[in-house]
Amino acid sequence: MFYANMKEFELIKLVERLFGDEDVITPAGKHDAAYVKIGNRLIVLTCDTVNEKSDFPPYMLPEEMGWMAIAVTLSDVAACGARPLYFLSSISLKSIEFFEDILLGIKRCADRFGVKVVGGDIDFSEITTIAGFAIGEARRHITRRGAKVGEGVFITDLPGKAQLCLEMLERGAKREELPYAEKLYTPVPRIEEGMRIARYASAMTDVSDSLAVSLHQISQSSNVKIVLDNIVLSHLSPAENALELFLYGGGDFELVYTAKSSDDGIRIGRVERGKGVFAEIDGKTFEVEFRGYSHF
Amino acid sequence: MFYANMKEFELIKLVERLFGDEDVITPAGKHDAAYVKIGNRLIVLTCDTVNEKSDFPPYMLPEEMGWMAIAVTLSDVAACGARPLYFLSSISLKSIEFFEDILLGIKRCADRFGVKVVGGDIDFSEITTIAGFAIGEARRHITRRGAKVGEGVFITDLPGKAQLCLEMLERGAKREELPYAEKLYTPVPRIEEGMRIARYASAMTDVSDSLAVSLHQISQSSNVKIVLDNIVLSHLSPAENALELFLYGGGDFELVYTAKSSDDGIRIGRVERGKGVFAEIDGKTFEVEFRGYSHF
Ligand SMILES: [Mg+2]
Ligand SMILES: [Mg+2]
Ligand SMILES: [Mg+2]
Ligand SMILES: [Mg+2]
Repeated sequence: MFYANMKEFELIKLVERLFGDEDVITPAGKHDAAYVKIGNRLIVLTCDTVNEKSDFPPYMLPEEMGWMAIAVTLSDVAACGARPLYFLSSISLKSIEFFEDILLGIKRCADRFGVKVVGGDIDFSEITTIAGFAIGEARRHITRRGAKVGEGVFITDLPGKAQLCLEMLERGAKREELPYAEKLYTPVPRIEEGMRIARYASAMTDVSDSLAVSLHQISQSSNVKIVLDNIVLSHLSPAENALELFLYGGGDFELVYTAKSSDDGIRIGRVERGKGVFAEIDGKTFEVEFRGYSHF
Repeated sequence: MFYANMKEFELIKLVERLFGDEDVITPAGKHDAAYVKIGNRLIVLTCDTVNEKSDFPPYMLPEEMGWMAIAVTLSDVAACGARPLYFLSSISLKSIEFFEDILLGIKRCADRFGVKVVGGDIDFSEITTIAGFAIGEARRHITRRGAKVGEGVFITDLPGKAQLCLEMLERGAKREELPYAEKLYTPVPRIEEGMRIARYASAMTDVSDSLAVSLHQISQSSNVKIVLDNIVLSHLSPAENALELFLYGGGDFELVYTAKSSDDGIRIGRVERGKGVFAEIDGKTFEVEFRGYSHF
């Protein structure tokens, strides 16, 4: 995992240019998942891939690889406030011996959220890769667009925990020394929270790359300025780069959303007229960059 | 591409054991795609992955990689006699320069079949890999189970063409020397044919691994014996291993199905009481093995 120049987002623009005018409610590139109508149902469709090289931290067990593959895909369903219904996966295996454990991890996460695993595909590769595909049903159409001036910015839990653990591992820590190992190895998609929040929030997305990226996406889609005025770093102490982890760390899979008020999350900022993402710390304001964990 | 011990099918049995009792119409492992109900609609869900190492023949252009990724996924939708509606893909790139061409290939195939490309995911890998997910709507529930004694066995076009080309390439042929280059580089999913055939056929599947594998799957699922009594090899001459290519060659993406009669395909055999798959040639009968092109 590394910080990079966010080429991925340049590529997403290309996707939007080619497919953005498809006649669907929300097409490729505009939200965490696509919204389409099937009969009179509002359905969300999303896919996400994890692989050994970019996504699996040291000490990860095969069962956790399976869990992570479905969890990150369901996180995008959660970002629609939708109930996930079905999951499929394309698994590229390095070694057949991992296969059953990967499936068991997928099943454990699917069972927890009442998701039916209905299909898949098996392949062989030097790099263990799991492409997940989920379908869910939404009550209403909530995306990154819709944040309103005067609202608060909320998050389901304070960010930076997964990245903190990852950096500790990179500096030689053992798994059992990590303060938030479960955030890194078995992230929990915020399904129930998302379904509750979607009833009243104006915009929502999940935090996969970083809080900064997610807020920039809400800011750009909603055409508003976002100011983080309640940055809490105590959960990241004694890390020296706590602010960096909070803003730019990836892998938390929390939901960040805008609303007048909320009992489901922690208020971290406010929506203002204008553009961009800013942070206020000790009376000083600085611009939050568009960057975070990236696959490139 | 190579013939192997079909370990993939052992792994599918494991999937069936873990997920086979999910409360859906047709679950993982039983057909080319899963059938589920969304509202009052009969929906099929399927995923398929192609990668540079196992699936992309020499001389393949990036646009053809994109085409192939969606085409093989839609082929499983065709095997349900369903109309494909939406497509998503997870693309793992080796080089960013291929990205636009891959997307263009996906778009060209999607446009041809009226499929909407609604999402995707981009990743980076040493091996270019495209995982495709498709959703379609079926009229009725047709699977590999349902073939009846006395019916004929039909195929939308004679098999072995893709494998013939691949073997010619392996022996040093140039792309322009191939008799069926389009079968190898831009296979066409039999969407319209599948929708027509599903109205009257009793069982159907596509030929991805080999005709032999597809027929064994119909035979096992339907609990019948299949006898190939009209093996035509002229399209494969002057290959010395024409029968091998016909029975065990992969990558044709034709539909094979059983029906009383059919104007949509070529009659190649018959359904009898019993078990297994057999071929009759020049008055001699031999058993057709369960093997074909495999990813393992
Ligand atoms: Mg997301
Ligand atoms: Mg995602
Ligand atoms: Mg198939
Ligand atoms: Mg397939």
